[in-house]
Amino acid sequence: MKDVLRPYKTLDSSRICLGYATPYASAKFIRARDPAFLPPVPQGNTAGPNNSGAISWIFPSNTAQYAVRPLGMDEVQACIFDVFGTLVDWRTAIIKALESEGKRCGASPQTDWEAFANEWRQGYMRKTREIANGLVDGPLNVDVLHRNILEEMLASSKWNGLGKIWGDEDRKKLTLAWHFLDGWADSSEGLHALKQTKIIAALSNGNVRLLVDMAKHANLPWDAVLSCELLGSFKPNPKTYLGAAYHLSLPPSQVAMVAAHIYDLRAAASHGMKTVYVRRGEDIVDEVKSKADGGEVDVVVNSITELAALINRV
Amino acid sequence: MKDVLRPYKTLDSSRICLGYATPYASAKFIRARDPAFLPPVPQGNTAGPNNSGAISWIFPSNTAQYAVRPLGMDEVQACIFDVFGTLVDWRTAIIKALESEGKRCGASPQTDWEAFANEWRQGYMRKTREIANGLVDGPLNVDVLHRNILEEMLASSKWNGLGKIWGDEDRKKLTLAWHFLDGWADSSEGLHALKQTKIIAALSNGNVRLLVDMAKHANLPWDAVLSCELLGSFKPNPKTYLGAAYHLSLPPSQVAMVAAHIYDLRAAASHGMKTVYVRRGEDIVDEVKSKADGGEVDVVVNSITELAALINRV
Repeated sequence: MKDVLRPYKTLDSSRICLGYATPYASAKFIRARDPAFLPPVPQGNTAGPNNSGAISWIFPSNTAQYAVRPLGMDEVQACIFDVFGTLVDWRTAIIKALESEGKRCGASPQTDWEAFANEWRQGYMRKTREIANGLVDGPLNVDVLHRNILEEMLASSKWNGLGKIWGDEDRKKLTLAWHFLDGWADSSEGLHALKQTKIIAALSNGNVRLLVDMAKHANLPWDAVLSCELLGSFKPNPKTYLGAAYHLSLPPSQVAMVAAHIYDLRAAASHGMKTVYVRRGEDIVDEVKSKADGGEVDVVVNSITELAALINRV
Repeated sequence: MKDVLRPYKTLDSSRICLGYATPYASAKFIRARDPAFLPPVPQGNTAGPNNSGAISWIFPSNTAQYAVRPLGMDEVQACIFDVFGTLVDWRTAIIKALESEGKRCGASPQTDWEAFANEWRQGYMRKTREIANGLVDGPLNVDVLHRNILEEMLASSKWNGLGKIWGDEDRKKLTLAWHFLDGWADSSEGLHALKQTKIIAALSNGNVRLLVDMAKHANLPWDAVLSCELLGSFKPNPKTYLGAAYHLSLPPSQVAMVAAHIYDLRAAASHGMKTVYVRRGEDIVDEVKSKADGGEVDVVVNSITELAALINRV
């Protein structure tokens, strides 16, 4: 552990962050696969939020400002993006894949494909959350996770009719359907515009190959693909947000998390990141407002092109 | 460790490999920060090469074919690239940055900037190799490494004249000069062409932010930026090559390592990857030949555009 726990000199304090600062804290997360690896909280430092229920973390005192200073979007150097739901439409593509594979294999015409898709997605949400919270061990690879959940569903009494007609090849094909989802109409254009002035990176629970296939399919021009698997957990575990900031060599205050899910933004905000909520009809469960409107996020937009216009104007 | 060591079902045996296959071996590397974490080699499996001097690894028996089967480039799904020297010209840019910063601060006109640049680079090569071989602990962040080596040089009797005139800001600026190197004339065009048919990823010792800044500066359109820091060591440690194949969900035989340094290609080949040697004048130290010409690499090219034409023709 010594390599990353050493208090490095700050390389460029105006812009980054190697050393005492946030990366020092985040580096501990990236490497600390067991809470026992964490050093004791030094005297005089600010204890940060404990999001995982299993690990608490600290900001060294000289960077506590990053976590509490209320700053505007003009400071943002990088935008990191949730992908499923925020940039791509998983529901339409997955329902279509299920229906097509069902028809080919002779499934009942009454099958509720939307219910199947929602249950698969809910299983993913539940499982990633359990892993992020340290309640269960992995897998950290979303392809494996998707396949495991599919197997469980097809073995259940509700779906075992499909379980009988879908063999190994069909199950592989359906699992890989999650790699090739279409982007929302504004996603590609907005990311291309944002990339002109900022670093844009995926910060997704998806595995690297899934995100690469998706980027090629939906034309998402990432500067970096930060799969949470590379960072050692799933969102909303602190490792993922702090790991992203560390690897982009930025303090969290210079990073904006962009997502259509408030849980993701709340976690990012708790680490001092800026927050951008994107309204995507089907995933809206809460009424989310910007701080200017008495809400909790920094910015609310209806599209990535709107965000790009806003950021590029600042 | 349980999450990644479990022998998952193979998701798509024709194309990948989640599970028993190579990712199973590579996953052990990614997680195994201590040899004690490695499980015993199962009976009937093929022991692989021990490149690090510290860790040995195994291929499960059903993927041993990947390491030994002599296959053509037509099987390649992804090209992974060395960056410093192979795609960008570090020497010209670093000499220029040193000279400019020297003049500004009143350095002697007789200063041998090329010698300084070469010593800095040699320090990096020596240090990354020591870390890859497990001889010393990190740092795994190349910005930190570059700054540390610069500090050591400026404290030496040979360069302490410069040590007296360069303060903290100058040293930061020079360290960050490594982020903004120009590409060779063919690099950007070649990568854009290759990206049309294959996955292209950086596999570099450089840290993520360095590689992102370089990609923006030199227009290198990566599908994924695989910094060795994310994979837990430096090249030529096995973690880096196997980690890249794992995260791209490909067996090594479907990945081509592209580099201007034979040590990098020898390590990649030892894990069953395809190898492409790029002739870049100043870094040539060995006469490298293709297998067809009685040599050891799969392909020798003079440019990335030549490689793209060859791959896209296959």
